Amino acid sequence: MKRWVIGADLGGTLIRAMRTDLDGRMLARAEVHTQAQQGPEAILGRIFEVIGQASEGTDPGEVLGIAIGAPGPVDEQGRLFDPPNLPGLREVSLRERIRDRFQVPTFAGNDGNLGALGQLRFGAGQGVKHLIYMTIGTGIGGGIISNGELLIGARGFAAEIGHQTLVQDGPICGCGQPGHLEALASGPSIARRARERLAAGASSTIGQYREGGNDVTGKSVTDAARHGDKLALELLREAATYIGLGLVNLIHILEPQRILLGGGVSQAGELLFETVRQTVHDRVMSPVYKGVEIQPAALGADVGLMGAVALVLEQSSSA
Amino acid sequence: MKRWVIGADLGGTLIRAMRTDLDGRMLARAEVHTQAQQGPEAILGRIFEVIGQASEGTDPGEVLGIAIGAPGPVDEQGRLFDPPNLPGLREVSLRERIRDRFQVPTFAGNDGNLGALGQLRFGAGQGVKHLIYMTIGTGIGGGIISNGELLIGARGFAAEIGHQTLVQDGPICGCGQPGHLEALASGPSIARRARERLAAGASSTIGQYREGGNDVTGKSVTDAARHGDKLALELLREAATYIGLGLVNLIHILEPQRILLGGGVSQAGELLFETVRQTVHDRVMSPVYKGVEIQPAALGADVGLMGAVALVLEQSSSA
Repeated sequence: MKRWVIGADLGGTLIRAMRTDLDGRMLARAEVHTQAQQGPEAILGRIFEVIGQASEGTDPGEVLGIAIGAPGPVDEQGRLFDPPNLPGLREVSLRERIRDRFQVPTFAGNDGNLGALGQLRFGAGQGVKHLIYMTIGTGIGGGIISNGELLIGARGFAAEIGHQTLVQDGPICGCGQPGHLEALASGPSIARRARERLAAGASSTIGQYREGGNDVTGKSVTDAARHGDKLALELLREAATYIGLGLVNLIHILEPQRILLGGGVSQAGELLFETVRQTVHDRVMSPVYKGVEIQPAALGADVGLMGAVALVLEQSSSA
Repeated sequence: MKRWVIGADLGGTLIRAMRTDLDGRMLARAEVHTQAQQGPEAILGRIFEVIGQASEGTDPGEVLGIAIGAPGPVDEQGRLFDPPNLPGLREVSLRERIRDRFQVPTFAGNDGNLGALGQLRFGAGQGVKHLIYMTIGTGIGGGIISNGELLIGARGFAAEIGHQTLVQDGPICGCGQPGHLEALASGPSIARRARERLAAGASSTIGQYREGGNDVTGKSVTDAARHGDKLALELLREAATYIGLGLVNLIHILEPQRILLGGGVSQAGELLFETVRQTVHDRVMSPVYKGVEIQPAALGADVGLMGAVALVLEQSSSA
């Protein structure tokens, strides 16, 4: 009998789903705009729609399971807590609703955690039992693999690794607290620093790398840095130093073998990684921690979908 | 047949051992001064001596196992890396040497990790699957229980939870890095801040609580705070705020159900715990994290020994 797995990803902008075989080979995919402002039932309808499209032509008995990832704290029932861009989903169990609709085993998790599972099974973390995946984009999140298993904490809310205080009374984070890594090194934070410096009269070409008529973004800074802009290089080094310090904390707490960096800011490549690695090398408390590998994550924009597929496979094999 | 367990603890000042039954009831104990300056073989001789004393009158076949805890990074073979007060032990496998001498299954671990295991099995963490144990004394260390199991990382070096950067360019930590929690809230750090403030002319009774002819210590500050000294209270609040911020990081990363604080500084009791709890309440990124319990650790000075006993029992049951 043919067996398929469905992975889905609920984001603030897009809802996506993918069907793969048991080896994670993609066979079908679908996506739709979230239109979160239309409320939870409309969002659920669209989740059903993309899952339906991705599973088209299959028999329900052939689907091993469905998993869905979502941002922010998500419990094992797939209830979203504090979803900043997805209001109204707090009381909804995504897991229950999807299971009721499609009548197959269903799972849910935080998108950062699923990203780590995706790296472990299909990406740049294969064979690594102690792994940290950090995604640096609009926010900073991730997932932790400890001894080969996802570390989710008491209710699934662990691994909020972007929310470490690094600067007392530093800039306010999206979560409302001061000085978190996310507020110092995410794309919007880098862009904010660039705008501050430009407003203060710094000489730089960053403004030339704005897209359309838009304001300066993290990508403008990265693009300018690639062309040798000094301010842009300085701002990336600053962000990379904070990322390195955050990783040092995680290394001391978790002692991983490998750390994978993904997300838009990681696209800066060696401009970022060099300073991250140097900071880790310089700031770990003992030489025993210097061997940790710091590498680019794999799977690109599909990391959440592949992570959801990995969750189904993991849960099905352990059942 | 009677079965016994031997727990041992190698410290910079004392080497201790304890024999218990399989329920952790203490039946014999022994201790000796470490005299670390005499070198590794002399230390090993004294470890054998206290283990021998604690097992006196038992038959080798009756001993289920021996475990030993030691400070700093310790690998599973019981090799000490960077032991600041125990030079020369780096190349020695405590585990192998003790096993060869006593011919029973032997285990080794970091004393903070064993402390967490001790709390889980015999102390204030019984029945808690997601637990953090933090000891705040001369240094700040601890252990992490995730999903009922000790989180030790790739080689046993995880859970160095006192070595998080909280203040960029802050005071230098014992490990050589700036601004770590340990450099902001350990007993010696609190004493250093007190001496700085007194030298700068602050009005305080802290000096009256020195012991013997000694300099001001963390305990002097705690004692003065208990008697209402304003500077002492302020210094404790400052340390407790840093401890709270460090715990917030750990809560976001690990999502424990309970956190246990032990060690000399924790003896300040509510003078410390009140501010720690308030800081955690105020500084977690989401209300979902506010329920974590923050309580005093149990087992007092025997935490390391009871943790070693717990390690033997855990390893023996999983074998």
